[in-house]
Amino acid sequence: MPYFDAASAAPLHPVAREALLASLDEGWADPARLYREGRRARLLLDAAREAAAEAVGCRPDELVFTPSGTRAVHTGVAGALAARRRAGRRLLHSAVEHSSVLHAAEVHTAAGGSCAELPVDRTGRVAAGDVAAALGPDTALVCLQSANHEVGTAQPVEEVAALCQEAGVPLLVDAAQSLPWGPVPGGWSLLAASAHKWGGPPGVGLLAVRKGTRFAPQGPGDERESGRSPGFENIPAVVAAAASLRALRTGPETADEAARLRRLVDRIRTRVPELIPDVEVVGDPVHRLPHLVTFSCLYVDGEALLHELDRAGFSVSSGSSCTSSTLTPSHVLRAMGVLSEGNVRVSLPYGTPEAEVERFLEVLPETVRSVRERLGVPVAGRETAAESQAATAAAEPAGLVVDSLGKRCPLPVIELAKAIQEVPVGGTVTVLADDEAARQDIPAWCTMRDQEYVGERAAGRGVAYVVRRRA
Amino acid sequence: MPYFDAASAAPLHPVAREALLASLDEGWADPARLYREGRRARLLLDAAREAAAEAVGCRPDELVFTPSGTRAVHTGVAGALAARRRAGRRLLHSAVEHSSVLHAAEVHTAAGGSCAELPVDRTGRVAAGDVAAALGPDTALVCLQSANHEVGTAQPVEEVAALCQEAGVPLLVDAAQSLPWGPVPGGWSLLAASAHKWGGPPGVGLLAVRKGTRFAPQGPGDERESGRSPGFENIPAVVAAAASLRALRTGPETADEAARLRRLVDRIRTRVPELIPDVEVVGDPVHRLPHLVTFSCLYVDGEALLHELDRAGFSVSSGSSCTSSTLTPSHVLRAMGVLSEGNVRVSLPYGTPEAEVERFLEVLPETVRSVRERLGVPVAGRETAAESQAATAAAEPAGLVVDSLGKRCPLPVIELAKAIQEVPVGGTVTVLADDEAARQDIPAWCTMRDQEYVGERAAGRGVAYVVRRRA
Repeated sequence: MPYFDAASAAPLHPVAREALLASLDEGWADPARLYREGRRARLLLDAAREAAAEAVGCRPDELVFTPSGTRAVHTGVAGALAARRRAGRRLLHSAVEHSSVLHAAEVHTAAGGSCAELPVDRTGRVAAGDVAAALGPDTALVCLQSANHEVGTAQPVEEVAALCQEAGVPLLVDAAQSLPWGPVPGGWSLLAASAHKWGGPPGVGLLAVRKGTRFAPQGPGDERESGRSPGFENIPAVVAAAASLRALRTGPETADEAARLRRLVDRIRTRVPELIPDVEVVGDPVHRLPHLVTFSCLYVDGEALLHELDRAGFSVSSGSSCTSSTLTPSHVLRAMGVLSEGNVRVSLPYGTPEAEVERFLEVLPETVRSVRERLGVPVAGRETAAESQAATAAAEPAGLVVDSLGKRCPLPVIELAKAIQEVPVGGTVTVLADDEAARQDIPAWCTMRDQEYVGERAAGRGVAYVVRRRA
Repeated sequence: MPYFDAASAAPLHPVAREALLASLDEGWADPARLYREGRRARLLLDAAREAAAEAVGCRPDELVFTPSGTRAVHTGVAGALAARRRAGRRLLHSAVEHSSVLHAAEVHTAAGGSCAELPVDRTGRVAAGDVAAALGPDTALVCLQSANHEVGTAQPVEEVAALCQEAGVPLLVDAAQSLPWGPVPGGWSLLAASAHKWGGPPGVGLLAVRKGTRFAPQGPGDERESGRSPGFENIPAVVAAAASLRALRTGPETADEAARLRRLVDRIRTRVPELIPDVEVVGDPVHRLPHLVTFSCLYVDGEALLHELDRAGFSVSSGSSCTSSTLTPSHVLRAMGVLSEGNVRVSLPYGTPEAEVERFLEVLPETVRSVRERLGVPVAGRETAAESQAATAAAEPAGLVVDSLGKRCPLPVIELAKAIQEVPVGGTVTVLADDEAARQDIPAWCTMRDQEYVGERAAGRGVAYVVRRRA
């Protein structure tokens, strides 16, 4: 059964499994104790730290283990900001960081600090020039992921690290997605990662803080992990995490495997738009993770698509609003200004057979077609509700109003696509919608279909989005 | 090889091992995902929560998993205090809580809150009357362990819970040591525990927050674990933790095993003072954990004793200052006012064979004797250093001054015991010492040997402790 969601969690690497089993017997005791069981646990912990540090490209005494990548980010951001408090309280981060960075930033703001988002282009990439422009005397910390978890775009970390060094500002790199594929280059100050992304067990994150980087751990601490990660060490999991990371790094097949997966992803990138109408492949085609590709299908309900793919045996994820608990589209897709409906992220685990990818390419077009068919051709509501009458009064001349109030993604866009055929070139369609995804997907649809997005305005209990027909 | 330090970490329970292995294959995926691997992970997580909640005695939706018992305490204390901020900012905790509670209290104090310590008697037990007296209108939270981790004394949790309920103040119970032996009775509001104390794997803590208890999680959060414990769930470990806790609870042998270990501990409590001169068994003889006993040996260096016991094959721990990284004695022994030198904690894992305990009782007397012999009979320094001359000028008439400056526990007490023989009844010995343990152990020695502890005063670079010979 093809599992194509390695970016969420990779299945346990065989080396990790073996190391975990061995260290359950050898590494369960308290490594702070002086008796033999404690000494054995300490030796395992020290060896795991050595191996992980080598793979990260830092010194062992710069690296601590945390209970997860999320906690590594939280600890790293809070500790770096607190240590820089006198220099300034401004946190810069890209608009497409992992939610763990955004949550840490929210806490910083709530405590009186300030945050600024670095924008990304349509491929999801930060411009180093924007970082240079944003770095100010009050900048306490910059957070930049090594590569994006939703669209795979690699960030210019090395260039940004040089800018930060020049400005004397620490750079925290969330390397959760890229660390399985190689160390992060450049002069970063702090680095966070997560073992279950590379086939290590859950329960292990890494936080590296380079010597010379000021760091003041926040919250209650204890004497474990250099005072940076309190609580009894999870040595069996840490040993398994380090062993599998080392196996990826030193195995002769890692570079080959990256190249092989890159070719499989390229094939998906090429074939999906050929096989399926109205699809947008997103993310940087060149500067990207080897194993990850994301595309969005117009007029498709992401949840239905995932469900159908799951029935067909494929496990993928999505940034569509209907697949999130908050019914808001992915902040990454939003920041990129790309379509969020019918979104599919494919991230291939190590060793994915080519045949599975081929079968995916066989199954996908029919799956998308059936989901679209099931959504049917919607009937555009015309000036029926009080809201639409009110909006009509203010609408453009020769305009058509589509009432999509109460309808969820992708229906507003489907109704827009239907209605645009019914107005003359130069005429407008006004879509009334209260679905959060419409704000993102109607402009994205205009870009994809070369129609003019006029703008939005408040209208009753929703928003009126105005589109002018170009051709 | 007898491992007698279950209170630090218990070896992995066979049920935990089996469950961990099974769920490594079934539970590695993200339980928030909708595809089959995610659904399987979610089922495992839900079942583990059900089992753990049943063993704790709460509802599944009241319980979250954390990365450790320490983190459960930190999260629980911070969340309860924040939610009670308007009611008050005073935290009451016993003087003998686990360091995780004390660290959380330090953070609370640093943030402008206040803390008050509830004293304990010589057995380490809090008096419910002291809690009643300390509960005030500004009390935000009370923290009381179910049983002490160093001396095994059980606290009057049920009585204190009733007082707290009456006062409308939440009670957080750190149940890390007692949960393996049964649920915590009474109307507690929050409960924290740690899986590796009952033979679960490391990496799992529990935090239960009873419905109706106000709780505001602090720090960055995410959507996992009801917003109370961020980061990817460690499902294999959680499943193993819950399975082993359930096995302890439902196994027919648990009550028998507790009774059996209680008898073994009683035997140690009785025999050690019979076999070894100058030993104090500490902790409540009745209200106590079944498997734990602690005693202190006069004139013994704790580190040397642990080292010799380790060489003889016994793994135990100690609250003596020389076995801690800070060279300060255990805060628990200090709060009880008992001797800290030559301290040994024996905590028996499930299934400890009686023969191992018997062998321990055979080995211990000779081990203590050899450590004492190695320490030799110290030569008391008399008025040699400038400090001792200064102190002598101020000393009692017919007094003797022992210069123990620069000497570590147990040497100051050994020198005191030697010197007391050299002064007449009614005369004094003044011990000059700069070892932190002396402040605790000289009064404790006086209590044990029925000598009069006169008091202490500053003297040069150390402290002068004055003892008057009674008989």
